[in-house]
Amino acid sequence: MGLLAVTLVLSVLFTGASRAKYEPTWESIDSRPLPGWFDQAKFGIFIHWGVFSVPSFGSEWFWWYWQKQKLKPYVDFMQKNYRPGFKYEDFAPMFTAEFFDAKEWTDIFAASGAKYIVLTTKHHEGFTLWGSKFSWNWNAVDVGPKRDLVDEVASALRGHSDLRLGLYHSLFEWFNPLYDLDAANHFSTSYFPYSKTLPELYELVVKYKPDVVWSDGDGDAPDKYWNSTGFLAWLYNESPVRDTVVTNDRWGYGTICKHGGYYTCADRYQPGHLLNHKWENCMTIDKKSWAYRRNAPLSDYLTIEELVTSLVETVSCGGNLLLNIGPRHDGRISPIFEERLRQMGQWLKVNGPAIYNSTAWRVQKDSVTPNVWYTSKPQEKSVFAILVEWPKNATVVLKDPVVTQGHTEVELLGHGSLHWEPVKPSGLRVLLPALSSIQMPCQWAWTLKLTGAT
Amino acid sequence: MGLLAVTLVLSVLFTGASRAKYEPTWESIDSRPLPGWFDQAKFGIFIHWGVFSVPSFGSEWFWWYWQKQKLKPYVDFMQKNYRPGFKYEDFAPMFTAEFFDAKEWTDIFAASGAKYIVLTTKHHEGFTLWGSKFSWNWNAVDVGPKRDLVDEVASALRGHSDLRLGLYHSLFEWFNPLYDLDAANHFSTSYFPYSKTLPELYELVVKYKPDVVWSDGDGDAPDKYWNSTGFLAWLYNESPVRDTVVTNDRWGYGTICKHGGYYTCADRYQPGHLLNHKWENCMTIDKKSWAYRRNAPLSDYLTIEELVTSLVETVSCGGNLLLNIGPRHDGRISPIFEERLRQMGQWLKVNGPAIYNSTAWRVQKDSVTPNVWYTSKPQEKSVFAILVEWPKNATVVLKDPVVTQGHTEVELLGHGSLHWEPVKPSGLRVLLPALSSIQMPCQWAWTLKLTGAT
Amino acid sequence: MGLLAVTLVLSVLFTGASRAKYEPTWESIDSRPLPGWFDQAKFGIFIHWGVFSVPSFGSEWFWWYWQKQKLKPYVDFMQKNYRPGFKYEDFAPMFTAEFFDAKEWTDIFAASGAKYIVLTTKHHEGFTLWGSKFSWNWNAVDVGPKRDLVDEVASALRGHSDLRLGLYHSLFEWFNPLYDLDAANHFSTSYFPYSKTLPELYELVVKYKPDVVWSDGDGDAPDKYWNSTGFLAWLYNESPVRDTVVTNDRWGYGTICKHGGYYTCADRYQPGHLLNHKWENCMTIDKKSWAYRRNAPLSDYLTIEELVTSLVETVSCGGNLLLNIGPRHDGRISPIFEERLRQMGQWLKVNGPAIYNSTAWRVQKDSVTPNVWYTSKPQEKSVFAILVEWPKNATVVLKDPVVTQGHTEVELLGHGSLHWEPVKPSGLRVLLPALSSIQMPCQWAWTLKLTGAT
Amino acid sequence: MGLLAVTLVLSVLFTGASRAKYEPTWESIDSRPLPGWFDQAKFGIFIHWGVFSVPSFGSEWFWWYWQKQKLKPYVDFMQKNYRPGFKYEDFAPMFTAEFFDAKEWTDIFAASGAKYIVLTTKHHEGFTLWGSKFSWNWNAVDVGPKRDLVDEVASALRGHSDLRLGLYHSLFEWFNPLYDLDAANHFSTSYFPYSKTLPELYELVVKYKPDVVWSDGDGDAPDKYWNSTGFLAWLYNESPVRDTVVTNDRWGYGTICKHGGYYTCADRYQPGHLLNHKWENCMTIDKKSWAYRRNAPLSDYLTIEELVTSLVETVSCGGNLLLNIGPRHDGRISPIFEERLRQMGQWLKVNGPAIYNSTAWRVQKDSVTPNVWYTSKPQEKSVFAILVEWPKNATVVLKDPVVTQGHTEVELLGHGSLHWEPVKPSGLRVLLPALSSIQMPCQWAWTLKLTGAT
Repeated sequence: MGLLAVTLVLSVLFTGASRAKYEPTWESIDSRPLPGWFDQAKFGIFIHWGVFSVPSFGSEWFWWYWQKQKLKPYVDFMQKNYRPGFKYEDFAPMFTAEFFDAKEWTDIFAASGAKYIVLTTKHHEGFTLWGSKFSWNWNAVDVGPKRDLVDEVASALRGHSDLRLGLYHSLFEWFNPLYDLDAANHFSTSYFPYSKTLPELYELVVKYKPDVVWSDGDGDAPDKYWNSTGFLAWLYNESPVRDTVVTNDRWGYGTICKHGGYYTCADRYQPGHLLNHKWENCMTIDKKSWAYRRNAPLSDYLTIEELVTSLVETVSCGGNLLLNIGPRHDGRISPIFEERLRQMGQWLKVNGPAIYNSTAWRVQKDSVTPNVWYTSKPQEKSVFAILVEWPKNATVVLKDPVVTQGHTEVELLGHGSLHWEPVKPSGLRVLLPALSSIQMPCQWAWTLKLTGAT
Repeated sequence: MGLLAVTLVLSVLFTGASRAKYEPTWESIDSRPLPGWFDQAKFGIFIHWGVFSVPSFGSEWFWWYWQKQKLKPYVDFMQKNYRPGFKYEDFAPMFTAEFFDAKEWTDIFAASGAKYIVLTTKHHEGFTLWGSKFSWNWNAVDVGPKRDLVDEVASALRGHSDLRLGLYHSLFEWFNPLYDLDAANHFSTSYFPYSKTLPELYELVVKYKPDVVWSDGDGDAPDKYWNSTGFLAWLYNESPVRDTVVTNDRWGYGTICKHGGYYTCADRYQPGHLLNHKWENCMTIDKKSWAYRRNAPLSDYLTIEELVTSLVETVSCGGNLLLNIGPRHDGRISPIFEERLRQMGQWLKVNGPAIYNSTAWRVQKDSVTPNVWYTSKPQEKSVFAILVEWPKNATVVLKDPVVTQGHTEVELLGHGSLHWEPVKPSGLRVLLPALSSIQMPCQWAWTLKLTGAT
Repeated sequence: MGLLAVTLVLSVLFTGASRAKYEPTWESIDSRPLPGWFDQAKFGIFIHWGVFSVPSFGSEWFWWYWQKQKLKPYVDFMQKNYRPGFKYEDFAPMFTAEFFDAKEWTDIFAASGAKYIVLTTKHHEGFTLWGSKFSWNWNAVDVGPKRDLVDEVASALRGHSDLRLGLYHSLFEWFNPLYDLDAANHFSTSYFPYSKTLPELYELVVKYKPDVVWSDGDGDAPDKYWNSTGFLAWLYNESPVRDTVVTNDRWGYGTICKHGGYYTCADRYQPGHLLNHKWENCMTIDKKSWAYRRNAPLSDYLTIEELVTSLVETVSCGGNLLLNIGPRHDGRISPIFEERLRQMGQWLKVNGPAIYNSTAWRVQKDSVTPNVWYTSKPQEKSVFAILVEWPKNATVVLKDPVVTQGHTEVELLGHGSLHWEPVKPSGLRVLLPALSSIQMPCQWAWTLKLTGAT
Repeated sequence: MGLLAVTLVLSVLFTGASRAKYEPTWESIDSRPLPGWFDQAKFGIFIHWGVFSVPSFGSEWFWWYWQKQKLKPYVDFMQKNYRPGFKYEDFAPMFTAEFFDAKEWTDIFAASGAKYIVLTTKHHEGFTLWGSKFSWNWNAVDVGPKRDLVDEVASALRGHSDLRLGLYHSLFEWFNPLYDLDAANHFSTSYFPYSKTLPELYELVVKYKPDVVWSDGDGDAPDKYWNSTGFLAWLYNESPVRDTVVTNDRWGYGTICKHGGYYTCADRYQPGHLLNHKWENCMTIDKKSWAYRRNAPLSDYLTIEELVTSLVETVSCGGNLLLNIGPRHDGRISPIFEERLRQMGQWLKVNGPAIYNSTAWRVQKDSVTPNVWYTSKPQEKSVFAILVEWPKNATVVLKDPVVTQGHTEVELLGHGSLHWEPVKPSGLRVLLPALSSIQMPCQWAWTLKLTGAT
């Protein structure tokens, strides 16, 4: 077994070994510069889809909450609606995806202004949305949709040159007996990563050539157990996406916010200040769940005002926003999600210049006026002040920009030039026009572009 | 059989026969004045729910289109997703309603500003949402939800003193073999109405005491066949709701827009001018279906701007708006519907004075300025001009009101008094304030209340 | 309602009223001679098939025991295997009949030696195995098999000139709300018989032209309530089968063993002596159930020895045997049933002369030798002594026949002549040959044919 | 990966390596004497149970015939009865086993006279009837029965000291993607045996301690690929059953009828003469299938006469009979199978002395009289002549025994001594008694025990 099994991994690892630039150590891995596209993209869409989309109740952690934690709402839901002995696995054949149309999805994503998407190819349930050789009879080609969902999404994305593919993949699996075996051995054995996790990761990268590998779920096992640096060295040195791929920081217990590619630090991470490492705020439109919940009332969905504010604050502090939606088991994106995404796209159509390709400015938030966030484009000598609220008295004071009369110009994006006047001790007061609803360039947050300001 | 069967109907019909005011003739039935609450209500919610909510594909006419007309999209959908021999009846056990909470529904309805609701207690499929004695094994208590859905809605409504109960009921049934028998006999026999339709109607009225009986679906059979005037005479003379109930005009071939209570004339009826008989515009938020469609994209849902415009035009022309939503098979109202309904409620909170209890004015639509609709309250000496669009140049000319300087006052509902000036040869020009988004009293249509104008 | 409904029944009742011979009174109905074929047939097959064949647990009374009597084994079975809220109606779509082949059935029936079959067209559950107009959505054409099972059986029987069609039909239905209504009215109303039972009976007779109408299940309601004599008068006077049809005695509370056609008296009725009215012993191969039970062990099935003995005793006492099998939900007759039926056929191939067209003799059971039963054929001057056991000492004494040496002859059916000697005070001793297994004419009961004996 | 994975296998292989007696070569493996119990047992029961028991149509090769060979009856069956896209995996949740009671099974097995049973723990479909760690979500604990079926059978057998446990296990799996990968590599890689087959075999042996390991299904891959000798060396040297376990000869392409333990050579193998190596005839009661077939007519089941004949011939030629039954998906053994098994037990109760612990005699089949088979017990100086048919003329000539008048005795088992006379040139003529049916010691084959004959 030993020699033959080694062959599997090494045959992948060492084709073209001469190119090796990165060692399988965190020091070496962390030294790789992040490919530039990621920081420029700013806005991505996260998609949580899987067998959990069938009960579509509570959370994508349904299986765990029900069977392991035995939380009452989950236990009650099952007792009330399913026959005794019904198991989570029995949901899989009901994952039908009959209305799934990857082209419709990617059209919506493109309309939202997102520049990349990240799809849960395998969540902690272990069910792979592609026909993995290493997950027989527990994948979307063998059971449920009977389609390679990852392939369909990847293919449809090719029709949108502006949208990149990211693949979420959970290292551990809640109930995989081989993982349990390793855990019982305190991770001194590695049956699970070598027969499931690592082969899956290679499969994913080789087959679908993602630009993001979004790792998650270490199950408290250390990165050594997962051989994370080994995989990343292969990914950066040898894989077909070695030049463009970015990854995150969830590669084993203790790596988060510390090693890997960009930092995610925590779900819904929003530091409120600039970080000195590229980061991403992954968050959800449905405040309570990453998976679609059939019984979520409207009040559980963030409003477009809240979403735009999150994007603005995130980008201002140097992060990317990865905004999550949960499609339904039948493959549809609920209209309420579609509406939010299209509203984001409307806003970005006007305010995109302040977001895409922007750089965090020296100040993130105006020192005196609340709810004003800055971004900048040094190459254009522009500073962008984004007003999350329209000022009541039609003027706004920006304390932090250094301006020069006769040189500095102020523009309301989507409208045109505005008058301004310097204020003491620093900054400027911008006079906003009296615009009726229909004259407003956008509905939810407004950008003042300052050129000739520093 | 004869004598015994007669007993059933007559025992209901003639208890308290001394109260009889209306004869079973159209002349007599049509002479009944419409109870006043209906014209004052202006806005109701229509709910299409039934077995068709399970396939949730195409339309509530799914069964007919699939099995009778054999339309390709329906035939294909079934062939692709269901086993051969699957019949429409097989959908019924999947009508689970596990998330149905009548209180949540009625809270949303109340928040929408609606004053009545109309629920499909039985659509043309014949499946009754209550446990009808006359629809054994084809009703929601025996199959599917195993709950009396009509009763749950009716009970929850009691918690909202401002919301009235309406019950939709289809006279004919697409595939009922007794109806087919009568139809084959050119309606010279009446097996069907006497064993199904009429007993159901009595059951509904006696059990649930509705304020609206919304009849539909005559199947091209004349009102004589249905004994409609007989039923209506009982409803108006003897039933427990004889003083408050209103009905519509769909009581047999040829009665629509001609006999009964208020007129519906056609689905999505919008005459554009004042009628001399009370009418109702029943229409859908989903432009293409009354039933919930799982695969409806966002673009199939009317926007709130379009919905508010429909309400305004309808009320201006003397109608009520009955706005339809289609709940899902699991009992949830999709968030996109909830959003539209709550937006209606936001608008009505400000503009309700121009809608509820209003009367059509002598002019419906301004003669010169487009998109301005009038309503009035003679008792308050008020005329309401509702601007569906905010004027670009911040002034609006109203040609039709007769105004008097020093006497006529103009108010923007939700804001306050406005300046105006008379224009030649008639009417006035109202000067609108420069309001930013957040100062606007509402977002989608604005009401100018004129007092002292005629 | 009254007049029209009357039309339904009367149009059937009074076409060709001039032929009327029988009045709708028991005196007149009971005076009709039983058509001769029935007494000659002796052996029929009863078939219990319906929605109860899906749970296939406990009994065809499953619904009643589970939902009304709440017997623990049934309640437990449902709780353990089905989801909460699962109703009996939900079994109907699982009644698939995918392997049902009426030709295979009737070939087995023909091979069994039976001369008629009786199929449960509707048991107390109310589900009709044909597409009754009066049982919409609760019949085998609308739900489940989606086939007219009665028609398929009736058609296949036409290929067997020797097999006649009988139709079992239950008057009442356990849970029909209209029956409940009548019962609550102490049967002073008749909504149920006139809208369900009687129309069904007419439908059955007119469509399928049965030779037996096997009525059952009066629900403690009197024959007046069911209008049984009215129906029987029509059946005997006017129906298309008026010359050949036979019926039984289950036509309302108090009629059993007293009125109608032949008597059934009780399930598994075996009086042990001759009756002065033609009767039928309906009994089951599975000792505990009429419906197929999936979990019946072999010991619950009667052996062929027991079955042959039952037939012999029944015929000897003037009855017919109606032997029940329960097909499976998928339409198959379990091989154990097929084996028993074919074994019956093997036995009848040899011993049929003692059974078919036979007449009860003046003695049923030998006065001295146990397990010997007599039949006779006066027209052939034959008496048949059927030995249920083979005598240990190779001789058998028959006490009751009056024999004459030189004239009386004794034959072992399937073998040939035997020696005999007279015994005192009466009868004869027959000397049986020493036959090895393979020389035996049959395996389970042996017939001595006596000619020239009285 | 290599080192860790090696650990898995080796930790099992080399605990207690000092005991090693057998090398992992065929020469060494084949040199092991067969534990004596197996040859003494003579009669076992084979049980084919798995997901294939759900469609229960055609054969246990259902999946292959349908999806790979696309045989018309299978394709038609699926198209007619299941929805498009239905996959074999979707049958697994319907494998309910709700009526499975291992005690009832083993009581029937004990009553049949069998001395061992062999259960398909995993057929070519790959679904394990125990909760294998190496077959996650494709085993009976995770999906379908949600019970460890192997454990239940093994436990129930402990109540029958006379019945031993055998475990059938298929080496290959029709559709396992890792097997496909190896096959595509011409078996130069071994992903599949090391991650699935071998770990499963160790699991089975260690957990259930079987007395038979019945290997099957090599998929045309050589024993080297399967590392069969490695496994067998461990089984014979180290496993907990090393002293009692027997195996068969299906351990890779080319090993059948050549290497391993006893020979099976082919399904339904019946050489008709004595072999010089212990062998087993595995055969089915249902002539056409190993799995239960719902639509098998009675004529597809072998009669008890045919089954007894097979046992007699097999044992006479030195083999064991392994008689197969196919339980239903609900866990029941069909009554027709139960009947056949109990009939075998009745026969063996009388004739067991000629079967159990017997040895093949110098002649298998009498040289002159057809249908007479010999067995012997040298230790008792007995020769058994088993007459499959009862002689027509009540005498039988046995040509091959050498008899001595005054010394040789002949007994009809279950009856007593018989007269015999010598015949020329050799042998004897036995005079059979004239026994009626009920005097016969058994019904289907009769044993003459000769003592003092050689």
